[in-house]
Order: sequence, then C-alpha cells, then structure tokens
Amino acid sequence: MGKGRLEAFSDGVLAIIITIMVLELKVPHDAGWEALRHLGPVFLSYVLSFIYVGIYWNNHHHMMHAAKSVNGAILWANLFLLFWLSLVPFVTAWMGENHFARLPVICYGVILIMSSIAYWILAQTLIKHHGEHSVLARAVGSDTKGKISTGIYAAAIAVAFVYSWVAFALYAVVALMWLVPDKRIERILGEGSEGRHLS
Amino acid sequence: MGKGRLEAFSDGVLAIIITIMVLELKVPHDAGWEALRHLGPVFLSYVLSFIYVGIYWNNHHHMMHAAKSVNGAILWANLFLLFWLSLVPFVTAWMGENHFARLPVICYGVILIMSSIAYWILAQTLIKHHGEHSVLARAVGSDTKGKISTGIYAAAIAVAFVYSWVAFALYAVVALMWLVPDKRIERILGEGSEGRHLS
Amino acid sequence: MGKGRLEAFSDGVLAIIITIMVLELKVPHDAGWEALRHLGPVFLSYVLSFIYVGIYWNNHHHMMHAAKSVNGAILWANLFLLFWLSLVPFVTAWMGENHFARLPVICYGVILIMSSIAYWILAQTLIKHHGEHSVLARAVGSDTKGKISTGIYAAAIAVAFVYSWVAFALYAVVALMWLVPDKRIERILGEGSEGRHLS
Amino acid sequence: MGKGRLEAFSDGVLAIIITIMVLELKVPHDAGWEALRHLGPVFLSYVLSFIYVGIYWNNHHHMMHAAKSVNGAILWANLFLLFWLSLVPFVTAWMGENHFARLPVICYGVILIMSSIAYWILAQTLIKHHGEHSVLARAVGSDTKGKISTGIYAAAIAVAFVYSWVAFALYAVVALMWLVPDKRIERILGEGSEGRHLS
Repeated sequence: MGKGRLEAFSDGVLAIIITIMVLELKVPHDAGWEALRHLGPVFLSYVLSFIYVGIYWNNHHHMMHAAKSVNGAILWANLFLLFWLSLVPFVTAWMGENHFARLPVICYGVILIMSSIAYWILAQTLIKHHGEHSVLARAVGSDTKGKISTGIYAAAIAVAFVYSWVAFALYAVVALMWLVPDKRIERILGEGSEGRHLS
Repeated sequence: MGKGRLEAFSDGVLAIIITIMVLELKVPHDAGWEALRHLGPVFLSYVLSFIYVGIYWNNHHHMMHAAKSVNGAILWANLFLLFWLSLVPFVTAWMGENHFARLPVICYGVILIMSSIAYWILAQTLIKHHGEHSVLARAVGSDTKGKISTGIYAAAIAVAFVYSWVAFALYAVVALMWLVPDKRIERILGEGSEGRHLS
Repeated sequence: MGKGRLEAFSDGVLAIIITIMVLELKVPHDAGWEALRHLGPVFLSYVLSFIYVGIYWNNHHHMMHAAKSVNGAILWANLFLLFWLSLVPFVTAWMGENHFARLPVICYGVILIMSSIAYWILAQTLIKHHGEHSVLARAVGSDTKGKISTGIYAAAIAVAFVYSWVAFALYAVVALMWLVPDKRIERILGEGSEGRHLS
Repeated sequence: MGKGRLEAFSDGVLAIIITIMVLELKVPHDAGWEALRHLGPVFLSYVLSFIYVGIYWNNHHHMMHAAKSVNGAILWANLFLLFWLSLVPFVTAWMGENHFARLPVICYGVILIMSSIAYWILAQTLIKHHGEHSVLARAVGSDTKGKISTGIYAAAIAVAFVYSWVAFALYAVVALMWLVPDKRIERILGEGSEGRHLS
C-alpha cells in the first residue's frame, strides 16, 4: 500500500489540531489591556502546544519520508498517535484557563507521555514492516531523544504534584531540546537516498 | 477521471470530522477531579466515534486504493457517505452529554446504519464502474463483515428501547470486530498488484 | 504554474466549509424528541447546503480536471469563489435558526447568486488562459445550466419578499437539477483525453 | 527532502485559518436588518483578513513552486510563519467586535508585521538552501513590496494610537497593493522553467 494517503490524512488532522487550538483564545468583549493580559496563560500554553504539534509533524514527516509503504498495522498505529494528539487542544485550553493548576498540568503531561509512546509504537511498526536494516530503521535509530523526553515528562508529572509551574517549565525544556536542529536523521536519509529518486 | 481529488477531499472531510469532535469535550472552568470525571461519558463516546471514523477512513483507503478511476455517480455516492459521517460529531456529543440516554443512543445507531448503507452503495457504484471481475470487486468481496455490522446496529437500536447501555456495548463490539486485522483484502490486493506499480 | 496546490487548497477549504456547518447543529441539553424536532429547520438547511457545497466541489473537480495549468488571475478568481462559499455556513445557520424567515432566505439566495457569478468568472478566467478551442472551453461550454440557476436564484429572492418558503423550495429545485447526472462534460472530457494520460 | 508535505500541511493550515474565521460571524438570534447591520464591522474585518490569508497563500504558492527541496530549518521557518498567521482569526474577531478600537487595531498590525517578518525569514532560509543564483532567489528578488508593506504596517500602528480607522485603511491599502497582479515573479519563473518539467 502506498503511503500517500496516510501522509495526507495525518497532515490534515495535524493541521486541524494546530489550528483549532486558537479557537480557545476566546475573543474578549472589551478592547483594553486588561482583557489581553487575562489571555496570557492561555496564550502561553497555546505557544507550547503549537511547538509540540509542530515537532510531531516534523518528526512524522521525516520518518514517513524514509518509509516506502504501509500496512494495516501502521495505519492503526498512526491513528493511535493521532488520537492522543487530538486531545492536545483540550488539555492546552484546560491548563491555560486554570493558570497552570496541578491537575491540568498533570493531564497535559499524561497526553505528552501517551503521544510519545504512540510515536514509538508507530516507529516500531514501521521498522518491523521495512526490516531492521532499512534506511527507515537507521533513520529512527535508538531514538534516545524520544526516550529522554518520555522520562522528563514522567518526572514533570511527579513534580507537578508539588510545583506545577516547574512541570510546565520541564515540558518547555523538552520542546526546546527538539527545536535544536538534529542533523543526524537528515544525514542518514541523505546517504540512504543516494541514487534514489526522492519525490 | 482520476481518483486523486476524491481521495484528497474525503481525507479532508474525515480529518475534520475526527478532529472537531474533540471540540465537544468542553473545557471545564475548574481544575478539579470532579470536572474531569464529569467529562467521562463524553470522552467515552468520543473514543468510540474516533475509532469508527478511523475504521471508515481505513476501509475507504483500502477500497479506493483498488480503484483505478471514478465517475460522477461515484463522486455522489462518496458525498452521500460523507454526509452521514458528518453527523457523527453531533450524535457523539448528544449521546455523551446525556449519559447514553435512549433517544441519542438510538440516533447514534441510525447514523451508523445509514453510514454502512452509504458505504455499501459506494462499493457497489465502484464495482459497477470497474467490472465484476476487477481487483476492486474481489477486494470488496461479499462484504460479510459489513452486513453483519449493519445487522448488529439494527439489533442494538431495538435493544436501546429497553437498555441503552447494552446498545452502546454492541456498537463497541462491532468497532472491535473491525479493529481485528483483516488480512483478506490486503492479500487480494497484493495478488492483484503483482507486476503493477503501486504509488 | 501547476494546478496541484490550487486543487489541494480548494479541497481543503471546501472540506472545512462542508464540515463546520454541522457545528451549527447545536447539541441539545436534553435527550427527548422535542429537542430533536426543534433542530428540524437547521437540519433541513444543513442538508441543502451540504448538497450545494457538494455540487460546487463536483463541478470544480470536473472543470479543474480539464485545466492544464493556472496563472495568478485564476488563483484570485478561485479565492473569490471560495470567499462566497465560505459564507454558506453563516447563512445556512441563520436561515435554519430563524425558521426560513424572509431576510435570511434572501441572504442565502444572495450568497448563491454571488457564488454562481464567481464560478462563472473562474470558468472565464480558465478559458482565457487555455484558449477558446481547448478541451476545457468545450467542457465548460455555454454553461446554460449555470445561467438558468442564477436566474432562478434571482426569481427566488424576489419571491422571498412574499413567501420565503417558496424561495427555499426554488433553491432546492436548482440543487436537484444539478444532482441529475450530467453526462455531457464527462463525454467531452472523455473525447479530449483520448490518447492523453490522465493522472 | 521533498517539498510535497510542507505544501500540503501549509495548504491545510491556511485553508483552516481562512475558513474558521467565518465562525466568528456569530449567527444572530433574530432575523432583522438590525442584526445584520450589527455584524458589519466583524464582516469588514473578515473580508480584509480573508484577502490577507489569500495573499499569503498565493505568495507561498509562488515561492514554494520555485523551490526544489526543503530542509529542517525551512520546515521550522514555515511553522513560524504559520504560527503568526494562526493568530489572524483571533485579532480579526477582536478588532471587528470592538469596532476597530485602538488596541485591537494595533494588535492586528503587530500580527501583520510579525507575519511579514516570518515570511521574509522563510524566504531567506529557502534562498540559503537553494543558492543565491537559483531560480528561487531570483523569483523572490529584493522583495521590495514586502519591505514597503512592513513599513506601512509600522506606520499604521503608530497612527492607530490616534486614529485607529486610518490604521485600518492603511492595512487595506497594503492588501490592495498585493491584489494588483505582479507579473514579475511569474515571468522569471517562466524563464527559469524553460526546459524543465513543472508538475
């Protein structure tokens, strides 16, 4: 099976997730600074979630780029990932509107953990389909960054029971960690695609 | 006529349907467990509908993959299917917010029945266009699973008049039935595509 | 310039328009028949608009299929069409919620007229770009159906000042007129594409 | 890396942004002229923003058309642009609902400035990747129009502190400036693509 529609559907869902979050930035009825300042926490959590969905889209793009075909298990693993990401707008708004209170911050972390596990499952399903010596398997590698992220999310959730702002800061640190350019995957893909025709 | 835009448009509509459902998970104003627990039924029906839309996307993907071209009748049969699926977010939220009360559960079942009939019509229109001995016709087959599903939905609606939770459980059973991997279609497609170039 | 992204963007906008209309089917807070019956007019106007957006997508699909390339003027003519269609969800909900009162029914007709004019402009811009003897020009033809539709919309608006339900019926008649399969365009396209490779 | 998914994702996000803005045209509960007139300012700002998002889609389309491939930095520069554009629906609704009051008009200008800077960064990242003598670099050129626009936005913000309606008029002037067809890019692209196969 071709990978085209999986990519198109994922692009669609991720584009909608990243965009409908802004609907939670409720338009204030008055036009003063006070109204704008009131939106601060919601805006802050919007920015973080925008970056996270962007990271997922980016990584998804890279991983699927190395894929050659998909099967039924991959389609479902992909939907499992999209399911958890689809909950991001909810936890984002809940966390922002309650000014980073404990429970919403914990739930945000739970969604991040579940998403990272779902991404890992998707990667494994893809590797199983393409073989352990495929370009894709090498591009995914040991995914140390992913595992460290999952660990930090877990730590952040534990911390959130006491200091929820620290947990939020930890989520932001992980996001920054991913924003730092990672040449490794691109390099391996570059090697693998020598002599291949990349669309 | 090429099938590309029909796939793209369907992907778009299904991606939006699956994602805007989450907007019905209304963000609570307070940050306590009570608020989260209150969302339980809406979340439960969200999960079920996410799986259902995922199943339809999956099946649509498989069926259209075997298609080689489309005509006007197929475009409209496809829109007829999308129409019924577009009502899924409405019945999902109505069922969840009313804690699986009788009428919403019945309406949910009606939408499921209409969607399965619309899918069957789409399949027949595609088969008529491609011929009864086409790869597509063999990939769709007798669609026993689809017919059994429609039967269970009908039974569930009858049951809902007395025990609406049992009806919900039946909807969930059908969903699980589809989640179990079905190698048949992939195998036939694999045969049919021997020697062909699948994009 | 290739036509791929114009198609993709239009598919996206039309998919969103057709889907967010369902958000105006506000989920009732109680689960009785009364609540459902109350939604009748909104549902009715939803059905009509779903068909209309479907017709536009269908016609757009056919026309762009015959196009070989696009230019800046075509991009803007296309956006002009999408602008009017983007107002369909608004007039649909307004007409439904006010039980087909005069002014909303008139506004619905105005949007239909403006959309049909915008579609005509898009067609002319495409014909100018492809030449009067192109497959596209022949596929569009004299567009008698489009002109009759625009005429009926105008008549319906006039009628709406006295009987708004009759105007609504006229809008429905035009929609049905388009649902009747139109083999003409497909036939001409079929001729034109003989010996061509249609993706 | 191929540019296909970046285009698809951007098309998705821009299609959603341009379409969900209409959700801020809140459906009035009564059906009279008064209700419609009340929507005037929101409609006016909707029209302006629709044109702006259309311009960005148009320019993005042209620029990416000249691109041959993308890298990680380009993906992020693109997301940075989409981030600012994703805030357009918010400032559009806020400006409209508050009848072009000072602070919302200023914020609208800030979003326009940030978007134009983000677009400039995206262009530079693309040029760096393709080389200064590439078709893309020549197609982008010195982007005088973009720089003038940014300057007018800045002037408009300053003016908004005294006359917010004048600022709004300046935003509209810039939009009109972009609507005037710009043959330059198309011509250069036409030259560059001689002998190339444009999809």
